[in-house]
Amino acid sequence: MSNNLSFQVTSIDETTKARAGVLKTPHGAIVTPIFMPVGTQATVKTLSPEELTQCGCSIILANTYHLHLRPGDELVAKAGGLHAFESWAGSLLTDSGGFQVFSLRDISKITEEGVWFQSHIDGSKHFFSPERVIEIERNLGADIIMMFDECPPALADVAHIENAVDRTIRWAARCVTAHEKTPLRHGNAQALFGIVQGSIYKPLRERCARELVSMNLPGYAVGGLAVGESAQDLYETALFTCGLLPENKPRYLMGVGTPENILECIARGVDMFDCVLPTRNARNGTLFSWNGKINIRNACHTEDFGRGLDPSCACYACKNFSRAYLRHLFMAGEVLAIRLLTLHNIHFYMDLVKQARGHIAGGTLGEWKDSARETMKGERGGGAGGGGRGRVRVFP
Amino acid sequence: MSNNLSFQVTSIDETTKARAGVLKTPHGAIVTPIFMPVGTQATVKTLSPEELTQCGCSIILANTYHLHLRPGDELVAKAGGLHAFESWAGSLLTDSGGFQVFSLRDISKITEEGVWFQSHIDGSKHFFSPERVIEIERNLGADIIMMFDECPPALADVAHIENAVDRTIRWAARCVTAHEKTPLRHGNAQALFGIVQGSIYKPLRERCARELVSMNLPGYAVGGLAVGESAQDLYETALFTCGLLPENKPRYLMGVGTPENILECIARGVDMFDCVLPTRNARNGTLFSWNGKINIRNACHTEDFGRGLDPSCACYACKNFSRAYLRHLFMAGEVLAIRLLTLHNIHFYMDLVKQARGHIAGGTLGEWKDSARETMKGERGGGAGGGGRGRVRVFP
Repeated sequence: MSNNLSFQVTSIDETTKARAGVLKTPHGAIVTPIFMPVGTQATVKTLSPEELTQCGCSIILANTYHLHLRPGDELVAKAGGLHAFESWAGSLLTDSGGFQVFSLRDISKITEEGVWFQSHIDGSKHFFSPERVIEIERNLGADIIMMFDECPPALADVAHIENAVDRTIRWAARCVTAHEKTPLRHGNAQALFGIVQGSIYKPLRERCARELVSMNLPGYAVGGLAVGESAQDLYETALFTCGLLPENKPRYLMGVGTPENILECIARGVDMFDCVLPTRNARNGTLFSWNGKINIRNACHTEDFGRGLDPSCACYACKNFSRAYLRHLFMAGEVLAIRLLTLHNIHFYMDLVKQARGHIAGGTLGEWKDSARETMKGERGGGAGGGGRGRVRVFP
Repeated sequence: MSNNLSFQVTSIDETTKARAGVLKTPHGAIVTPIFMPVGTQATVKTLSPEELTQCGCSIILANTYHLHLRPGDELVAKAGGLHAFESWAGSLLTDSGGFQVFSLRDISKITEEGVWFQSHIDGSKHFFSPERVIEIERNLGADIIMMFDECPPALADVAHIENAVDRTIRWAARCVTAHEKTPLRHGNAQALFGIVQGSIYKPLRERCARELVSMNLPGYAVGGLAVGESAQDLYETALFTCGLLPENKPRYLMGVGTPENILECIARGVDMFDCVLPTRNARNGTLFSWNGKINIRNACHTEDFGRGLDPSCACYACKNFSRAYLRHLFMAGEVLAIRLLTLHNIHFYMDLVKQARGHIAGGTLGEWKDSARETMKGERGGGAGGGGRGRVRVFP
């Protein structure tokens, strides 16, 4: 299989399963563990590529489903692929759209061949199959492309999950074949990652991992989590599934999660994360910090002129603006509010994984993680669960 | 009167009434003619202070009416004034709120003492008088503060305009007294500008200008224009009113205008401009360029991968992104669209006045203005009046 990745584990934490490494793509080196901001529609919402680079981002996501519908993957291909289209010099990963089309349950028809679904934008009908998704991901041209998998609903019973695992395995084989057969579109080889499904059921995770590992893919994702299971189930499943995957391949936990989730899953052997939390929460006024969550709508920030969101943060928002000003912008519905809050949250997530990497190299990940989790339980008054709620304003 | 300004005319164009100069405030030197972006709610919509500086902005506006209502001028005063609150190191000008409260005609009660009005945010009642407005502007702490004037409706009859002129003169005297009596709040002297009213009626403009000039104010604005009059009336009134004002004081034409308006009024002796057009139009997808207006929603931009908005523009948006990408962002409702489009429009307006300054110094303003107006009449196909309209999306 044509591959463009190299991955090397550079250090292993002694007290946990955490490891640090370097993943190389045609668009640069990514130090792991890494957080990948979500750029669904070919933009990480509200931020410029320059700001992402300043935050330390080396790889971002985009979504096959959304870009196929708008502006269309053929159009992106004509632009020279996603890197050129969105002017992003770093690495890119495209999710396959499996999660999205299986979420459109009422307007999807699922067969062994693939999934018919209706666009959420204009109701037009579209068909995704393993082969079609690989074709679209070729057009988009990301460095890492995800296989098309079956994503069962959060509350599916075990029989449903088992069927989804079996289909995911069959579709993985079709993705591999399609990937081998289709030519490169933009000069770069694209690494196809497998997705291990199986919910919280260990025998299903085992079966899925065994089959996908036998395909010798360049990387593996843990899918089907972050769909409402308990933190304990998440952590157990992440630990168990990482144990089934090759030591020398990157492991990507899809859609996870809170800062606490990320630290715990790093400790269980995960190398790569993505989540909409930092960007989406920013648009709702919720900020992450080393001292806990902050709800910028809270009245306690009204006259807080003396400090930014997080005194230890070096982002442009924290270096230049008080909580009082950020709250004013947010309450007044000003776009600069969600720009600055998003910038801060992404900077925080990048700082989180950066500090984790340092502690893995130093062999202190376990201890540091526990103390960081303790301080992140929250500052008094300003926390998201704190007093005044203000007027809730949800930005686009 | 305590003053903090110096103004020096540095060159005069030989073929027009245009002049270039330097206006100094406690927050730096402003080369004129200048465009001042509008930052109504203590932010130029969508842009960061850093971006404004990169665009060459040296002075921005804020609005007394909006900031009095939210977050409150007392709160801004506690923050150390507007410069500190919004983290803007350059100069600031606050409009007096006259234009806003007189626009709320149905919910305002006007007396000689002042204006009672209801907040557009929550319906609460407030009172603006010359004295109250100076007090609020002291709290805000801008370098240049505008007097509280009576702004008659666009279609008012001459008797109404005459009454407004007389009241504006009386209120100007009260503003001067209030300004002399009230202490500085943030260490900087604040220059009080008069506003000449009188619509398109020369005798009224004459009377208003004569009275205000006798007060020996540090600068004068031409108000009551850009309210729907013809371009010819605008240009004639600007020329006539500039001729009534002292040569050695800055002249500010309020609320004007299009790039063409600005060039023509520079040629008639205006030094300072403000307008919401570049920021508001950006949020509706309309861009300014040296080759005319561009409607980014137009279908002709869908596959325009090869060029940005304006090949001669050095802004971040033009240097990094194609029209196809900008159109995609706009149609998808992504905030990055209105950021980049606003950045471009502000950059263009700053470039417009910069080039005008160069041509004044070179004595070629008249000729250059005519040829620039010609090229700005529009590029084929992509103009705002062009073919496809796409789906109109109006951002916040």
